[in-house]
Amino acid sequence: MTAGAGKLIGIGVGPGDPDLLTLKAVRALAEAEVMAFFAKAGNASHARAIAVRHLRGGVVELPLLYPVTTELPKCSASYRGALADFYDGAAAKIAAHLDAGRRVVVLCEGDPLFYGSYMHLHVRLSSRFASEIVPGITGMSGCWSSAGVPIAQGDDVFTVLPATLPESELARRLADIDAAVVMKVGRHLSKLRRALASSGRLDRALYVERGTMADAKMIPLTAKSDDEAPYFSVVLIPGWEHQP
Amino acid sequence: MTAGAGKLIGIGVGPGDPDLLTLKAVRALAEAEVMAFFAKAGNASHARAIAVRHLRGGVVELPLLYPVTTELPKCSASYRGALADFYDGAAAKIAAHLDAGRRVVVLCEGDPLFYGSYMHLHVRLSSRFASEIVPGITGMSGCWSSAGVPIAQGDDVFTVLPATLPESELARRLADIDAAVVMKVGRHLSKLRRALASSGRLDRALYVERGTMADAKMIPLTAKSDDEAPYFSVVLIPGWEHQP
Repeated sequence: MTAGAGKLIGIGVGPGDPDLLTLKAVRALAEAEVMAFFAKAGNASHARAIAVRHLRGGVVELPLLYPVTTELPKCSASYRGALADFYDGAAAKIAAHLDAGRRVVVLCEGDPLFYGSYMHLHVRLSSRFASEIVPGITGMSGCWSSAGVPIAQGDDVFTVLPATLPESELARRLADIDAAVVMKVGRHLSKLRRALASSGRLDRALYVERGTMADAKMIPLTAKSDDEAPYFSVVLIPGWEHQP
Repeated sequence: MTAGAGKLIGIGVGPGDPDLLTLKAVRALAEAEVMAFFAKAGNASHARAIAVRHLRGGVVELPLLYPVTTELPKCSASYRGALADFYDGAAAKIAAHLDAGRRVVVLCEGDPLFYGSYMHLHVRLSSRFASEIVPGITGMSGCWSSAGVPIAQGDDVFTVLPATLPESELARRLADIDAAVVMKVGRHLSKLRRALASSGRLDRALYVERGTMADAKMIPLTAKSDDEAPYFSVVLIPGWEHQP
């Protein structure tokens, strides 16, 4: 670790509701000298909007803009290379601030070390600089909390599955658990619907869109009449089947 | 729903660090008229200690004391009956306050609808009274955040397993996932260690005790020299195996 250097702090800002920030996150923001956040070019960062009201004056903002890569297939070596270069570059920018002795916070939607982009910076920087993680409420918890749906209890086996898995794999795994959250539903919804039907879980499945936003939509998946879904929609399969 | 009645609010107080309370939880506590919490007779409630500094004056405290049931085996019908009676009685006490038009908060360690005792009250009361869930940071997130361990990324399949499962079942499931958290380790540690070894996951496993406390203990499971573990210890098996 570099002596006298700054500190890297990954902050979970939660699932979207600005009031779901923790007291610890608020304090870390108030002490920050540099605030980094991931964004798409031309898009406002929702995490920044949640955090910005808690900053003191004069904080350096460091937007980390994902490279435009829609021309490359996601599984290609070129896409992965472009992303690796992007994370290397972002880590270098942050390292320069840390070397100068500054406190750098990195905003993370949800929880920093649970499927978050921050992890790509953490693995590049945490062996060289002091670091701290402020955990956040996950997006999936925001969903089941808004819906008021008990998700898992007692000795339930609970699983998070990406909808990108092949249909047979989804069906096999869904048949083998008590409770699940399926993420990245988007264009995989028709496949997921078939996997839920063949695993006997379709009747319990809840479809959630914009889970913790004011315009959240939560309906039984069987009541959803089409298979159009935004990328960030999720499907909940609640456990605790024998609740009183 | 009863017209003009009170409101039931399940509040996640997080994994133990008082600063991991959310702004929303702080506000709900400041507005509470009754604060209920689960506890064991003779034990101080840690959730209460976190919450109490945020209450206004004159709040009615309602401790819900688990029945003493150590004389009954946990799988027995008598044990389950005693617990069901306890939850029925607790729900009735809270319902009386709600019928009187009061705002009743129920404290939950971690996240209310994720393996929490609050769920037993929620299923008994939420169809009769207005209710709201304030999600909280889970204990497992507190653990991987304190440890600075990226737990799951990209298309990882992530699973929560109770260590109470049979050894062959634990081994089969551990071999089939990318990332896992094993809960309720306690007296099951030697069995879990064997299941991790036979599923090829022992080398990645991290043992965590009192995850977000000042005296947290986090070591590779292979460096833990015995199989004594408190009930609330967990084992993390981080995913993202091919991280850069």
